[in-house]
Amino acid sequence: MSVPNVVVVGAGGVGVICALSLTTKNLSDVSLVVRSDYDHVQEKGYQINSCDYGKLDSWRPHHIFRTAEDAANSDKFYDYIIITTKNIPDGPIGSKVENIVKPLLLHNHNLDFARQSNILLIQNGIDIENSILETFDQTEYNYTILSGIEIVGSTKIARGTIHQIGHEKITVGAFQPDDSNAKLAAKKFIGLYYNEGKNDAEYDERVRHSRWNKLLYNAAINTTTALIGLDVPRALQFGVDGKSTEFEIFKPAMREIIGIAASEGIVLDESFIDFFTNISRNLMFKPSMCVDREKGQLMELEVILGNPLRIAKKHGVETPVLSGLYFLLVMLQGKLKEANGLIKFDEKTCKIVE
Amino acid sequence: MSVPNVVVVGAGGVGVICALSLTTKNLSDVSLVVRSDYDHVQEKGYQINSCDYGKLDSWRPHHIFRTAEDAANSDKFYDYIIITTKNIPDGPIGSKVENIVKPLLLHNHNLDFARQSNILLIQNGIDIENSILETFDQTEYNYTILSGIEIVGSTKIARGTIHQIGHEKITVGAFQPDDSNAKLAAKKFIGLYYNEGKNDAEYDERVRHSRWNKLLYNAAINTTTALIGLDVPRALQFGVDGKSTEFEIFKPAMREIIGIAASEGIVLDESFIDFFTNISRNLMFKPSMCVDREKGQLMELEVILGNPLRIAKKHGVETPVLSGLYFLLVMLQGKLKEANGLIKFDEKTCKIVE
Repeated sequence: MSVPNVVVVGAGGVGVICALSLTTKNLSDVSLVVRSDYDHVQEKGYQINSCDYGKLDSWRPHHIFRTAEDAANSDKFYDYIIITTKNIPDGPIGSKVENIVKPLLLHNHNLDFARQSNILLIQNGIDIENSILETFDQTEYNYTILSGIEIVGSTKIARGTIHQIGHEKITVGAFQPDDSNAKLAAKKFIGLYYNEGKNDAEYDERVRHSRWNKLLYNAAINTTTALIGLDVPRALQFGVDGKSTEFEIFKPAMREIIGIAASEGIVLDESFIDFFTNISRNLMFKPSMCVDREKGQLMELEVILGNPLRIAKKHGVETPVLSGLYFLLVMLQGKLKEANGLIKFDEKTCKIVE
Repeated sequence: MSVPNVVVVGAGGVGVICALSLTTKNLSDVSLVVRSDYDHVQEKGYQINSCDYGKLDSWRPHHIFRTAEDAANSDKFYDYIIITTKNIPDGPIGSKVENIVKPLLLHNHNLDFARQSNILLIQNGIDIENSILETFDQTEYNYTILSGIEIVGSTKIARGTIHQIGHEKITVGAFQPDDSNAKLAAKKFIGLYYNEGKNDAEYDERVRHSRWNKLLYNAAINTTTALIGLDVPRALQFGVDGKSTEFEIFKPAMREIIGIAASEGIVLDESFIDFFTNISRNLMFKPSMCVDREKGQLMELEVILGNPLRIAKKHGVETPVLSGLYFLLVMLQGKLKEANGLIKFDEKTCKIVE
C-alpha cells in the first residue's frame, strides 16, 4: 500500500512548518496549497530559517497547488485534509472553513466513498468543528474531524520566506470524543508528523479541554492587545500603576473563561491564569489578533471570543469583562470589514448597505 | 471706569469663537493667547467662516499674545482669565490647567491684590476646578472660579482658519455654589458675551448638575468612539445586529453616570440617555476624544472618565462598563504618551523608564 496523502491548505507561518514537518518525516505524500505565493514558490521554492530544521534554501513539499480546487483536481485521495488558514466565520464566504474543505472532501468522496477522510483543523478557537459537521453528513462523506493545537513561533516574513524562531509543539486529537476512527487517525497522524529531536507532536486525549485552556490566553490577552494595538508587555505596563491590565482585565477575563468551561463540565487548572499572564510579560510579543488588526485583516474574533460567549449565554454564566471586550471588538471588526470592502456604510443614511 | 479685560488662553475652535463673541459684543478688552499660530495671525489675522457671525477676513481680537507669560507681561489686570485648552492632568506639566493659569493669576495679584480675578474654565469633565483650588489659596489670590459649558461646532481647519458649523451655546456659572462673588461674576460675564440673534449665552445656576449631564455623553459615547476610532453612526451600526453598542455600552454606561451623580445627590434626568444616544445617531460626527486619538494627541481621559470613576469608588457605586472602558483607554493613552515622547518604554527590560 502506498503512503498516506496529506494536503495542507494555508501557507502562512504555521502551514509551511506543518508541510515541512511532514515532508521531513517522509512517511506521507505532502501537497501544499500556496495561493498568493504560488508563482514565487513554484519558481524558487521556500527560503526557511527554522530553529527546528535549520536553514533551507529552495525547499518544496512534494507538490504545490494554487488553490484547494486545483489540489482536488488530481487522482490522489487525501487521507488528511489539514486546514491552517485563519478561522473567520464572519469573513468572506470563500474563506469559511467548510467552504475551504468542500472541494477536497467532495473529491475524496467521488474518488472512493469507502475510504476515510480525516479533516484536521490547526486553528484557534472553540466549536470550530461545528460548521463542518453541519455542512457535511458524516456518514455519507465518511470523514473524521481532528483538532490540532499548534504552538510555533513561525512567521512568513516575505514572499516564500519563513522565519521560525519558536520550537514547534503540536497536539492532535479527535474533536468528537466518542469517534474511535478519529482517535486512531489522530494517533496515526502523530506517527507521520513527529521528528525526534526536532519538533514535538503528541496525541491529545481531551481536545476540548486543551482548546478551553488555550482560550484562557486568547480570549483574554489576544483580544485586549488587539483592541488597543499593543504588545503584551506594553499592555501590562500601560495600565493604572502598571496593574489594572493584569488585575482588572486579563485575570478577571480568564476567570470568566474558567467559569464558562466549568458550565460544560470542563475543569481548567487555575494556575494557568498566572502562567499565561507571565508567559509574555517580558517578551516583546504581539498576539495574532493584534497582528491581524495592525495588518488591516479581519480577526478570529468569533471563534476566540464569540463562541465562548454564546456558550456562556446558553448556560447563564456571567461574563462582564469578556462581553465588554467583545462588544468593542465587534465594532473594530466592522471597521476592518469596511476597510476590506466586505461591508459598505452609507454616510447619507448612516446605515450598512447590502 | 474702563471696560473689563478678558484674556482667552487656547486658540482652537472654541477659543477663537469665544474671543470673537466677546469682541463682537465690544464691552470688554479682549486678549487671545494664540501659541502655534501666533506669527500667522499676527501677520494675516483669522479667516473665519461662522454660522453665527458670517465670513470674516483678517479678523483679530484687540490683542494677541504668543504665551500666557507674554499676556501676563503687560499692565492690564485680567478680570476674566478664560481657559479653553484641553484639560489633560496626565499630560505635560506645562499644559496642566493650574500651570496655565499661574502666570496670569500671579500677574493680577502683583498688580492689584484687592481686585477680584475670575477664572473661567471652558473645558470638559468634572472636578476640573480642584487642581486650581488646591494650588492657589482663594483668599490670598482673591479669585473666583467659573464653569463654562460650551456647545459649538467649531474647528480650526488650518493655520489661522476657523470653521464654525454649529451654533454657539454657552452656559456659565460658579463652580462653588456658595460663592456669591463667583455668581455675580458669571452673570456679568453673560452680559459681556451674549450677542442677541447670534450666539446663546446663559447663566448656569447648577454647574455641577450641568457637568454631570454633559458627562452622560462624554463618558459613554466620546470614550467608546475614541477606543475604536469610529464616528458615532458607525459605532452604533457596527454593533451586533446594530444593537450592542447602544444597549450594551452606551446606555449602561450612561446609567452608571446617573448612579455616580446620584451618589453625591445630583439627580439627572433619565430621558437624556435616549437624547444623547440619538443626537448623533444619524450625524457623521466624531467626538473630541476620537479626534484627539486619530490626531495622535492625548485624550481628556482623566477629567471625562477618571474623575467620575474616582467619585464612584469613594461612594461605592458599581461601574462595570465605565471601568472596563477606562482600563482599556488608559492603555491607549499610554500608547499616545509614548508616541508623544511623554513616557519611554524600554523593550529590553519591558518597563517604563524615567
